[in-house]
Amino acid sequence: MRKLIVISLLLTVIAIPGFGQRKIVNLPDIPGYVTLKCDFHMHTIFSDGSVWPTYRLAEALKDGLDAIAITDHIVIAPKKGYVPVDLNAAWKLTETAAKESNIILVHGAEISRKMPPGHLNALFITDAEALQKDSVWDVIEEAAKQGGFIQWDHPGWKAQQPDGIPRMYDIHKRLLDKGWINGIEFFNSDEYYPLVFTFCEQYNLALMGNSDIHAIISEKYTAPNYTNRPMTLVFAKEKTAESLKEAMFAGRTMVYFRDMLVGREKYAKQFFDKCISIGKPFYENNENIYFEVTNKSDLPFYLTNGVSGAPESITLASNSVTRVVLSKKIKTQLVYDVKNVLIGEKKVLKVELKY
Amino acid sequence: MRKLIVISLLLTVIAIPGFGQRKIVNLPDIPGYVTLKCDFHMHTIFSDGSVWPTYRLAEALKDGLDAIAITDHIVIAPKKGYVPVDLNAAWKLTETAAKESNIILVHGAEISRKMPPGHLNALFITDAEALQKDSVWDVIEEAAKQGGFIQWDHPGWKAQQPDGIPRMYDIHKRLLDKGWINGIEFFNSDEYYPLVFTFCEQYNLALMGNSDIHAIISEKYTAPNYTNRPMTLVFAKEKTAESLKEAMFAGRTMVYFRDMLVGREKYAKQFFDKCISIGKPFYENNENIYFEVTNKSDLPFYLTNGVSGAPESITLASNSVTRVVLSKKIKTQLVYDVKNVLIGEKKVLKVELKY
Amino acid sequence: MRKLIVISLLLTVIAIPGFGQRKIVNLPDIPGYVTLKCDFHMHTIFSDGSVWPTYRLAEALKDGLDAIAITDHIVIAPKKGYVPVDLNAAWKLTETAAKESNIILVHGAEISRKMPPGHLNALFITDAEALQKDSVWDVIEEAAKQGGFIQWDHPGWKAQQPDGIPRMYDIHKRLLDKGWINGIEFFNSDEYYPLVFTFCEQYNLALMGNSDIHAIISEKYTAPNYTNRPMTLVFAKEKTAESLKEAMFAGRTMVYFRDMLVGREKYAKQFFDKCISIGKPFYENNENIYFEVTNKSDLPFYLTNGVSGAPESITLASNSVTRVVLSKKIKTQLVYDVKNVLIGEKKVLKVELKY
Amino acid sequence: MRKLIVISLLLTVIAIPGFGQRKIVNLPDIPGYVTLKCDFHMHTIFSDGSVWPTYRLAEALKDGLDAIAITDHIVIAPKKGYVPVDLNAAWKLTETAAKESNIILVHGAEISRKMPPGHLNALFITDAEALQKDSVWDVIEEAAKQGGFIQWDHPGWKAQQPDGIPRMYDIHKRLLDKGWINGIEFFNSDEYYPLVFTFCEQYNLALMGNSDIHAIISEKYTAPNYTNRPMTLVFAKEKTAESLKEAMFAGRTMVYFRDMLVGREKYAKQFFDKCISIGKPFYENNENIYFEVTNKSDLPFYLTNGVSGAPESITLASNSVTRVVLSKKIKTQLVYDVKNVLIGEKKVLKVELKY
Repeated sequence: MRKLIVISLLLTVIAIPGFGQRKIVNLPDIPGYVTLKCDFHMHTIFSDGSVWPTYRLAEALKDGLDAIAITDHIVIAPKKGYVPVDLNAAWKLTETAAKESNIILVHGAEISRKMPPGHLNALFITDAEALQKDSVWDVIEEAAKQGGFIQWDHPGWKAQQPDGIPRMYDIHKRLLDKGWINGIEFFNSDEYYPLVFTFCEQYNLALMGNSDIHAIISEKYTAPNYTNRPMTLVFAKEKTAESLKEAMFAGRTMVYFRDMLVGREKYAKQFFDKCISIGKPFYENNENIYFEVTNKSDLPFYLTNGVSGAPESITLASNSVTRVVLSKKIKTQLVYDVKNVLIGEKKVLKVELKY
Repeated sequence: MRKLIVISLLLTVIAIPGFGQRKIVNLPDIPGYVTLKCDFHMHTIFSDGSVWPTYRLAEALKDGLDAIAITDHIVIAPKKGYVPVDLNAAWKLTETAAKESNIILVHGAEISRKMPPGHLNALFITDAEALQKDSVWDVIEEAAKQGGFIQWDHPGWKAQQPDGIPRMYDIHKRLLDKGWINGIEFFNSDEYYPLVFTFCEQYNLALMGNSDIHAIISEKYTAPNYTNRPMTLVFAKEKTAESLKEAMFAGRTMVYFRDMLVGREKYAKQFFDKCISIGKPFYENNENIYFEVTNKSDLPFYLTNGVSGAPESITLASNSVTRVVLSKKIKTQLVYDVKNVLIGEKKVLKVELKY
Repeated sequence: MRKLIVISLLLTVIAIPGFGQRKIVNLPDIPGYVTLKCDFHMHTIFSDGSVWPTYRLAEALKDGLDAIAITDHIVIAPKKGYVPVDLNAAWKLTETAAKESNIILVHGAEISRKMPPGHLNALFITDAEALQKDSVWDVIEEAAKQGGFIQWDHPGWKAQQPDGIPRMYDIHKRLLDKGWINGIEFFNSDEYYPLVFTFCEQYNLALMGNSDIHAIISEKYTAPNYTNRPMTLVFAKEKTAESLKEAMFAGRTMVYFRDMLVGREKYAKQFFDKCISIGKPFYENNENIYFEVTNKSDLPFYLTNGVSGAPESITLASNSVTRVVLSKKIKTQLVYDVKNVLIGEKKVLKVELKY
Repeated sequence: MRKLIVISLLLTVIAIPGFGQRKIVNLPDIPGYVTLKCDFHMHTIFSDGSVWPTYRLAEALKDGLDAIAITDHIVIAPKKGYVPVDLNAAWKLTETAAKESNIILVHGAEISRKMPPGHLNALFITDAEALQKDSVWDVIEEAAKQGGFIQWDHPGWKAQQPDGIPRMYDIHKRLLDKGWINGIEFFNSDEYYPLVFTFCEQYNLALMGNSDIHAIISEKYTAPNYTNRPMTLVFAKEKTAESLKEAMFAGRTMVYFRDMLVGREKYAKQFFDKCISIGKPFYENNENIYFEVTNKSDLPFYLTNGVSGAPESITLASNSVTRVVLSKKIKTQLVYDVKNVLIGEKKVLKVELKY
């Protein structure tokens, strides 16, 4: 038996998850909804990506995602000399493995045109080959006819907008009139476009955040610069493809990347409240009271602009407990800006710490 | 505002906890008790350690501990040419900071004699200087008189037992008769002594696991070889010094180090059940059903000796979700040995996965 | 200017090599030869691998390799429903990029048959499509006719040899008579076959060590378990394809994986001598002299079985300086076994430390 | 023997240097001099530090330093209720261990006064207790009399200069007239003071860079934010205390921290040239030629402001080989600014890449 123990100690201490194991992403559900962690933009060798479709699934599983869409480009087919074009290939090759992995696979494709209208992902479609049409308008109409959710991709991508500023062209407005744009990427790859928040408010669209990965997730989004790929957090009634789709059309999303969380105030507020818990004071002396704030999430929160007398700023590190020392003279509410939680293009979440 | 976001992105992505921040140790409470993470054996420059006492507190806070004892050696005083002997110094220097840090500071000292009886820690005492006596019997009597919990330290330490096997000498038995040994170290530094489990069963004592650190915790217990220092997990009614002491005298402890968890079956079973949750099957086909097992704890579990037809072994990596694929032909219970959870000197925990 | 400095400090401290940057692998040349770091066994989506061929090149560059062979399987073509079979595709797709990356690209293919003869890599061939023949003998003859170097792959692979022990079958001996087996894998993926050393000695063949990677190098060979992929070290007259081939046919190789280095004594001895330098004593007192041993390589050396009075064992950690303290009474030579440098199936390198 | 190999593979792959092992710091010697890696500012429990003096030596050894000074504060003695003041204690306690570790131990103390003159380290003194005098002038005179090298510490420390800008007061100028200030800290802890470069040029002083560590080096200067503590690089004729002292009085120093290297042009130029080697072109096509630049040092170099047609900027990552692709049309010299090598308060090194 002593030997048994020895064997146990000789095992690699850090058991590395194998295939079939997913990381727990510490992001809470909000009241009434499960929070689905999603990436709706990625490529494979069936367009200009570097990997076989099933590999995208293995990556998603490892990263703890609930849903993905593989969205190979329509038209952009640099490998067609070796790989015949088949825009449904990725879907067919991963459908069963996705079910076996408890990942919702969203059938998708990327409509890739010059700006305007630029690139748009058609999500929840049924046949990507049917999107091979000359007119972009016809393509989008077909996607909509299939029940597709249309996501405007990286609207400030410098290859199409050299100044990095997204612009609404006439065709975008006409598509919006038809209900044929349903979300816009705020995060794409390692970029973000603040103005997208205003567009989403104006037209009542879902904020989207995706990796647009072409090579290898683990080699791109790696410490120390990254803790995770960009994700769309979808607040769905349950973890099913139908609920996911309903939630997206209803605009119940936030987007998450690095140490930023971005979304409408009502979701941001509920989300923050579920991440944070505040203990009763554990100690006091003549001058101060002491209490602890627990942040159970993977996201740090940078609290700034504290009221006079309270700490000017507090960093609630991810998965940590932070002690707060407060002068007994402070009688006002402990209100802070959360610098890294955006609830508008130019607005950050305000919170109160109640101990 | 765009600028504000830029600033946010330029912050170090991984917010490193500062002083006043503690790591969350993902080890669950069990029904009726809070699980206090403790280290009852450490040294400072007031005996043969390398650091000032307050540093031990900073380390404990960072590691997410709930209680510590600083236990400088009585008699062993290699620095006395520069630092006058004061066995209560560490206590006096850290008492207030411990209160301000929400850490229970246990007043302690290490009685350091040749084997037998070897080294013993006196915990929950009130005056370590009063333990400066010639006869070890007198010292222990004084410690007991002060209400002390007596822990037999590293009984298989090779400097005192060259074969590494702990031995009960006559003096130990006489001390046990008096009730003056209350716990024994199963883990000390990077050693462990399986026989200690049997001793603790025979005499109804608390299993103890401590670092006995002399230098720097973060430099010794470092990845990839270590995920944490050795800890005593105490199941206390609440997080107070009194409850902690009551629980230790009642033997409600487990010990935790690397990927091993060791303790009595009733605690081990409840602990495992709180770490693990098993989802409903999320998929099935003609041959198999698929379900997920979530391990929310920092401890992996190595399940082995599965019933015929089921997976022979399953590794439930820490903070991960593991998919289990099961043949529909399997009708028996899914019973496993948990190889790294010891419930006796030669016995591992048995568990059933109910999906 | 102050601002300029600020900008500099805000840059990521650890500049991560981009495409076009290669890691320096600290493994020395030996007298008369450059040491080429090579991997002659890898797969892409053109057989059963997960990535596009150019990605293998990017991985090799990052890992600091000098030469690679992409060796997709002949016959094993699970993706042929989507990707037409073209055994020269990987070569054609990477040839120019290899030249631009200063990596020698060796044209190869894996002949994949049942045991015997099992799998064999044909390296330095000119047309892999010409190896599409029914008889394995005809295939190997064709490879030899093209000037190919024939490497017997993973001879103890458990899928083909359930006990893990390589066996010479009659067909292997007949191939050897023709000169049509030129090297054997000692390391493959995360396995090794000690008996291969004896085979290589008997038949005067090159020891080979390769990754046989199907998925992603950086996800498989990752710390803490791995520091590098398996490599064949080839001692070539210069870094050209011709010199590489000449050296391999001449058997001038060693193999390297994790903390093991394996090869013929003459190369191992020269290699060790180039890794290690021993300083003059920097201090002495009445009892001891003190000197330092510098290991400039990425490989640690575990010295054991020291002479009586000298340190019993010394670990020369990679890229480190180790202090040796020696009793002045020791008058014998400081001879050690180097436990992790094998110069035969059951033999380790012996070295002397001369200070 | 198979077993032996198994044992070898089960060893921790990354052999962690033990006590007596030092990291190799990859910073080259320059022609005529050895480059000594030094830290001349650190504290122990004999003033306001957290550790015992020998621990500073262990840290220095691990970090690969050649020389250190332990410089406990004169007057600042917060621990004197427990530890009697003895300003020579650290020296006495570490002198022999330093010799046995091949580290030059410089006897030092920190003269700690209000600004002006602020704090000054007396280095190479013989008796720190003799510096216990009322008048700071008398203290410095005594230090000078002992042969001391006087280093002005952190002249822009915000506790003494709230705007962070160093100022020369009258007393500094009078000390300079006497030759009693010999160097100034450009780097201290995690701060730097650009103006110090100008002071050092005006008065012909040595640039200094030190940690001023009070707690634990490995916990403060840790990845991802830091690769190393601040260091003074001294260009000495040989590795002896006498040569070190001679070099410092002669001003032959550079300072190194994070990704910054700062010092006089002649040293910076020679240093860069020893870090970098440029290979012959390994490939060319109709448009471009390709060559590799090897950076054998631990310091990255950020090359910027390239001539028209050449790459605008090149990052030579530490310990890496960088490929440069150059249009054949470029006929001018490849001249770059090295953004992170400062040769003046507002001046960066200019280099030419000759291939």
